[in-house]
Amino acid sequence: MPTIGKRTAQRLALYLVKAPKEEVAALVDAIVKMKERVRFCSQCGSLSEDDVCPICRDPKRDRSVICVVEEPGNVMRIESTGEYKGLYHVLHGRLSPLDGIGPEDLAIDKLERRIENLGVKEVIIATNPNVEGEATCNYIAQALKPLGIKITSIATGVPIGSDLDFADEMTLSRAFRGRAEIK
Amino acid sequence: MPTIGKRTAQRLALYLVKAPKEEVAALVDAIVKMKERVRFCSQCGSLSEDDVCPICRDPKRDRSVICVVEEPGNVMRIESTGEYKGLYHVLHGRLSPLDGIGPEDLAIDKLERRIENLGVKEVIIATNPNVEGEATCNYIAQALKPLGIKITSIATGVPIGSDLDFADEMTLSRAFRGRAEIK
Repeated sequence: MPTIGKRTAQRLALYLVKAPKEEVAALVDAIVKMKERVRFCSQCGSLSEDDVCPICRDPKRDRSVICVVEEPGNVMRIESTGEYKGLYHVLHGRLSPLDGIGPEDLAIDKLERRIENLGVKEVIIATNPNVEGEATCNYIAQALKPLGIKITSIATGVPIGSDLDFADEMTLSRAFRGRAEIK
Repeated sequence: MPTIGKRTAQRLALYLVKAPKEEVAALVDAIVKMKERVRFCSQCGSLSEDDVCPICRDPKRDRSVICVVEEPGNVMRIESTGEYKGLYHVLHGRLSPLDGIGPEDLAIDKLERRIENLGVKEVIIATNPNVEGEATCNYIAQALKPLGIKITSIATGVPIGSDLDFADEMTLSRAFRGRAEIK
């Protein structure tokens, strides 16, 4: 499992061997229930206990904006900022020729149908700011172009609270190109 | 001295005690020469061996843009990206009420004179993306407003090569607000 190597696995296993029977039973029960209950939202593809997730059901969310992300974890991360009030679309992956993941694996047609059905006016692409994420972003932007809606991507630049001296050259370069006018 | 604590200082001192006499003499000589030769450029305030630094002297640099930074080290950092071709202006500090550094210590009038003399069309503010740096950025933007030139700031957002999961909430928030249209 991710982040658990051989030594951590051994430590966890030994902990469970020593733990009271009830604690181990509760853990097993929680895993089984989680696996039974949690699935992917039929609309946006993020995690949900129902067919449609709470965000897609929420009448207060702005249905004219869809934010495209790679994984369900990204939805939680963005929600924690409280900045974004629209809907999401989870790709469950990214373009990755080396891993054999091509455009057909990203189900862009499903995204296109949602855009048309909901009357979406802006798609914000928030794939990861690395090589595969940017290739995915460009591919989606091209694919959605015929729909004639606004397509944006989240800003890359120097992170808040940091120092220019800690920014790598690529990031600093982008920060210059992406500079914004102060009104 | 910065980054050198008690233990490192001791290790360095012991190294010099053991080092050949010539090596120590060369180090002392280098420090003395550096201190004699390196000063601040009379125009932009960055490091220079002459009255005017090589960047200010270079006829190929774009004299219609000035990038404002906090320290001379920031100039080197930005130069390493190769992205920026204009001139610089080093503040040698930032607004910091707790340290008693107010607007009068930043010598904004000198910047204003340079803008007028050079016929600058855009000022790019590249102060650090933290509380003091942003206060400094806002102060300069306000102070330069009457000149009627374009004032921009470098982009804050998720750094290149990283993952949304590693971005803090403030940065992710800004990345959404600072999103740019894909044409």
